[in-house]
Amino acid sequence: MAKKAPPRSPLAPSPPPEVAAVPGVRLATLAAGLRYQGRPDLLLVELAPGTAVAGMLTRSLTCGHPVRWCRERLPAGRARALIVNAGNANVFRGADGDAAVRREAEAVAGALGCAVDEVLVASTGVIGARFDPEPIAARLSELAARLGRDGFLDAAEAIRTTDTFAKVATADAAIDGVPVRIAGIAKGSGMVAPDTATVFGFVFTDAAVPAAALRSIWTEAVERTFNAITVDGDTSTSDTFLLFATAQAAHGPIARAGDTRLADFADAVEAVARDLAIQVVRDGEGAQKLVTIHVEGGVDDASARRVALSIANSPLVKTAIAGGDANWGRVVMAVGKAGEPVEVERLAIAFGDIWVARDGAAVVDLDEGPVGAHLRGRDVRIGVVIGRGPGRATVWTCDLTHGYIDINADYRS
Amino acid sequence: MAKKAPPRSPLAPSPPPEVAAVPGVRLATLAAGLRYQGRPDLLLVELAPGTAVAGMLTRSLTCGHPVRWCRERLPAGRARALIVNAGNANVFRGADGDAAVRREAEAVAGALGCAVDEVLVASTGVIGARFDPEPIAARLSELAARLGRDGFLDAAEAIRTTDTFAKVATADAAIDGVPVRIAGIAKGSGMVAPDTATVFGFVFTDAAVPAAALRSIWTEAVERTFNAITVDGDTSTSDTFLLFATAQAAHGPIARAGDTRLADFADAVEAVARDLAIQVVRDGEGAQKLVTIHVEGGVDDASARRVALSIANSPLVKTAIAGGDANWGRVVMAVGKAGEPVEVERLAIAFGDIWVARDGAAVVDLDEGPVGAHLRGRDVRIGVVIGRGPGRATVWTCDLTHGYIDINADYRS
Repeated sequence: MAKKAPPRSPLAPSPPPEVAAVPGVRLATLAAGLRYQGRPDLLLVELAPGTAVAGMLTRSLTCGHPVRWCRERLPAGRARALIVNAGNANVFRGADGDAAVRREAEAVAGALGCAVDEVLVASTGVIGARFDPEPIAARLSELAARLGRDGFLDAAEAIRTTDTFAKVATADAAIDGVPVRIAGIAKGSGMVAPDTATVFGFVFTDAAVPAAALRSIWTEAVERTFNAITVDGDTSTSDTFLLFATAQAAHGPIARAGDTRLADFADAVEAVARDLAIQVVRDGEGAQKLVTIHVEGGVDDASARRVALSIANSPLVKTAIAGGDANWGRVVMAVGKAGEPVEVERLAIAFGDIWVARDGAAVVDLDEGPVGAHLRGRDVRIGVVIGRGPGRATVWTCDLTHGYIDINADYRS
Repeated sequence: MAKKAPPRSPLAPSPPPEVAAVPGVRLATLAAGLRYQGRPDLLLVELAPGTAVAGMLTRSLTCGHPVRWCRERLPAGRARALIVNAGNANVFRGADGDAAVRREAEAVAGALGCAVDEVLVASTGVIGARFDPEPIAARLSELAARLGRDGFLDAAEAIRTTDTFAKVATADAAIDGVPVRIAGIAKGSGMVAPDTATVFGFVFTDAAVPAAALRSIWTEAVERTFNAITVDGDTSTSDTFLLFATAQAAHGPIARAGDTRLADFADAVEAVARDLAIQVVRDGEGAQKLVTIHVEGGVDDASARRVALSIANSPLVKTAIAGGDANWGRVVMAVGKAGEPVEVERLAIAFGDIWVARDGAAVVDLDEGPVGAHLRGRDVRIGVVIGRGPGRATVWTCDLTHGYIDINADYRS
């Protein structure tokens, strides 16, 4: 059954930002026809010798075979290539699934002349369908011949499943006064229909940062960005977030993770990750509004984040926002179900900049007009104070609309 | 803005069962006009002297003032009255909210001539709105004058918010060869729109069972029934489950919780609670299908239940069922995100009686016809084996449809 592609999200950034080349990174895409017809669905990235890598992977206990492959190779901290396909996630296929990843990595290593353990692999698409690596292996020399320094937007196009727009972001930073470039791509639009389920975020820089330092920067950035977004609370089998540093920039050597010369770089990496993560939410299935939820007063940041995610994942909160309804009672409910320490007598809730509840009770004689106007906009902000400590967190989600049901209640094929 | 009432759920049992009187229980209802007009919204239950009570209350940390009242009084194990209103949940009102509950209980105690601490209170409806006990207090002598032995169906009607049908259930049991009666009422239909959020379950018996034994039976029954259902994963501020035993039956005295003469009675109590709980799911907002999820092979029952609830709360699983789609990849995803021990290589999934995945991989050459036929029915069953131990659990949910969005994305007033 042919499926009509959902229209481009009304929250898409337009136009997409220009992304300049990153020294040491070469990209190529191809229409391999793995599932989608008439569009690129395969991405190869070649990384200069000496590239360091840090990764964060899904916590799912039924994770995909490419995730298992990456999990075993990331501790070495080195990468020469990344191959990504859209259409088949290679999940839940037993020993065959693992063998298929190895075959794919070997083909890449053969085409680029690098070690097989320096090839990272990511796949997104249908769960449980047989993954045949041969159509990919057969096209690798063609793909390698196409490698070029430009094409981040094309790369982002190739890794889409039902994303309605390609996601790219970029930033500049300085290490030791020497400029470095950062560029990233992402995919994800909820836990994507018809039955794919993945968020990818791949970020590239020419900085020369050892893997241990990269890991520390990336872990913190991902926790505050890709791990702080939710569309439907469903966790992918294949989420993969990788940060590659090609060491082409001419700044002085970095020895350790805590080096203060990395502060500006770390901020820029987080900014790129945040930009990409918010774009994923902007492409949330059926999304009509971007919702930013900020919680203050948790016993610590992690507790504040769990409260924020409880609000962000509540279908009742998300449908209220879809309806433009200042229904702060549902926010009270979602705070209460999080199971985190809360001082109810100090609980306060704001929509936009307007407090609707304070000190554990409704604000008296509230003018609901400006609140309603804020909630009818595309960009909704919910602020919550839980009064227990210094912890704070921001998470991003979207509203829950008929569009989500349309996309996800359709038949598969 | 007038809201059109949603149509009666297609999953409603029809006709409702006949519920005979329970000795020691008298009921009365009244249209007090607290929020709804032209329909009863207030229920008073009088219980014979010597009635024991056991209760389970919401775990929400932003629970309502009536829940706090009950939490303080339930340890005594005695009750002479229950008063329940629909329309205002009396939540998040600070000291005023607590004072309102006390005023209400005092009025009941005055009308019935019992101790104020033997009056239990439950309220459902809007969160955060001021709760005025005076309109209730003013009608109490009228309400008391109406008390009668019949009327469980009327009682269930009076405690509805947006439930599309009244929920009653009944069973007979024997203790020591002496027959005892059990009758119950419930309310709830998701976390009910427009902004009420509650499941109630009140069960009455004429058995003579001390509070400690009652508590043990009720805790187990609620865990396996009301705590094993989910419509949208949102937890109410006001969930209240009470079991009253009026001690009017003539069986021999029961001294302790583990008395084997209580086995038949405990089974019947659980059957009534299960019947009511499943009716709540059948009235789930927008529900077109009842979904029963059975998980085997958990390290223990609690772990199996968390996996089952992860499946039951997954929007992707629920929309797939709405679409009649045998999308077992989404079940794999939901198992993986539960964070519970799973043996992926032994994971198996069935729709109805048909295995679609076994031993960690898709069933080869599956005939999808019968699977699709099962999923297009009103009564969908998902079986999952996770291969780690003897733990098992059953939970109930409904599909996620456009009806849920219609009901919950509407404006409040």
